[in-house]
Amino acid sequence: MPSRSLALSRSWTSCGTWITSLAATPSLGSRSSTIQSGCNGSASLATRLLAYLVAALALLATPALSRTLPLPDSLVGLNSDAGAKMLLEAPARQSYWNLSIQFVTQKTQSFCGVASTVMVLNALGVPAPSTPAYEPYHVYTQDNVLDARTEAVLPQAVIARQGMTLDQLGALLRTFGVRAEVHHAADMDLAQFRAIAQQALAAKDQYVIVNYLRRAMGQERGGHISPLAAYDATADRFLILDVARYKYPPVWVTAADLFAAMNTPDADNEGRTRGFVVVGYDANKKAD
Amino acid sequence: MPSRSLALSRSWTSCGTWITSLAATPSLGSRSSTIQSGCNGSASLATRLLAYLVAALALLATPALSRTLPLPDSLVGLNSDAGAKMLLEAPARQSYWNLSIQFVTQKTQSFCGVASTVMVLNALGVPAPSTPAYEPYHVYTQDNVLDARTEAVLPQAVIARQGMTLDQLGALLRTFGVRAEVHHAADMDLAQFRAIAQQALAAKDQYVIVNYLRRAMGQERGGHISPLAAYDATADRFLILDVARYKYPPVWVTAADLFAAMNTPDADNEGRTRGFVVVGYDANKKAD
Repeated sequence: MPSRSLALSRSWTSCGTWITSLAATPSLGSRSSTIQSGCNGSASLATRLLAYLVAALALLATPALSRTLPLPDSLVGLNSDAGAKMLLEAPARQSYWNLSIQFVTQKTQSFCGVASTVMVLNALGVPAPSTPAYEPYHVYTQDNVLDARTEAVLPQAVIARQGMTLDQLGALLRTFGVRAEVHHAADMDLAQFRAIAQQALAAKDQYVIVNYLRRAMGQERGGHISPLAAYDATADRFLILDVARYKYPPVWVTAADLFAAMNTPDADNEGRTRGFVVVGYDANKKAD
Repeated sequence: MPSRSLALSRSWTSCGTWITSLAATPSLGSRSSTIQSGCNGSASLATRLLAYLVAALALLATPALSRTLPLPDSLVGLNSDAGAKMLLEAPARQSYWNLSIQFVTQKTQSFCGVASTVMVLNALGVPAPSTPAYEPYHVYTQDNVLDARTEAVLPQAVIARQGMTLDQLGALLRTFGVRAEVHHAADMDLAQFRAIAQQALAAKDQYVIVNYLRRAMGQERGGHISPLAAYDATADRFLILDVARYKYPPVWVTAADLFAAMNTPDADNEGRTRGFVVVGYDANKKAD
């Protein structure tokens, strides 16, 4: 059982369950609701009270109807005129088409890696299990993607508590019979990252999942995992389909800012830097 | 308690829980999985056996890895080269940007209207409740959108059993303080539908949800509800962001085919035709 301080530290591995909850922007005028969602409601009362206090203060500075956090000037939302224009003009956007139609919201605040995995497995067309709600159709969901094989690599209880590291993400993906090449940012330079990611985004059946420190690119706040969907060479920006859709829209980030946010040490991964995974799948060469 | 034959008939109101399960395409090679999803597993054993029999036969004619059903030649998937090109060139696609980042899969096979409602409320920025998984952030989900006010208009138990009619969809939407103009196809002609929908899709803060009979446009099979996202004038086609993502990709359908599929009588709505709802919201003029 980790101590509280350890839990706080570990929450930065990915998704940032604890830390990010301290700077929220709730909407005004929401009506009372029967809330039925399953979730990991692990925050303590004190943490919740603190979160609401900070959220109330944040309200004073943000539009009342905003339900995602404001973006720093360095990021461009896909749902802005400038962001839409970038997608229309981006040459390396093959990934976008299959990923955008599989876009999901992470099920809990520590499930960014799980949600990213589900999106990429579905985009690749990896044979999927069924699920009672959708019988007889087959599709990966955040409810059926974790099974005995993933449990052996990374227990669900660990994911629920602290998300996952870059290396754990790679290991998890490989249990599905896909190629998953893990690249730590410290092992390359910006130009190499740009070239590898750009090539993958322009290819069919290759996808890139990035693991980065949000606060290094002006977002709230800890480690996070989401798929890339496109690269705009003119602006030298990558499009992140952020799976914390309740918190941020998809954003275009400069290659330099993204690389810097990946080139940060992850205390939960023995201090190794964050980075990215290139995922591919060839159904005809599938081994298992 | 409705009889089985009534249930079968009623399932066509929207989403088509029973009928559509008879023509599925399961994937090969999916691995065993711990399935944890909540769902409405209401199909009888006989129905399930029949579904699997037909699905097995369908396998003989479709690619082993396909996890969505094949499209008729009259429909163009968004995730095809031709479909992507249409979006890049469509002048009336303002709706697409905010809807695509809110794209969700209907939670159960009768929740097409609920999923469409969630997408449009989030796209419009209607103040949302929180939900334990995402505290302190606020967003509509298929778990928190149904509450005491929607229950008074349309009980969740009814939605779970038979989906909803076009008029019920409009009434449900209005409980959220939005404008929801219900148009039955029989009350207008193709040109009027095209003009109204095209104008809404090109506007900010207006959205169109369509209610149509799948089999009238070559899909499996019953009544269905999903949002429109764009209109391509050159091809005279509308883009449907189909919320049954386990079953079909988003498709471009000709205005004539879509209108014909809406211009079908709904036995659960006193024989009135299906149609569409134009949804708008002005936060500054919000009454409640």
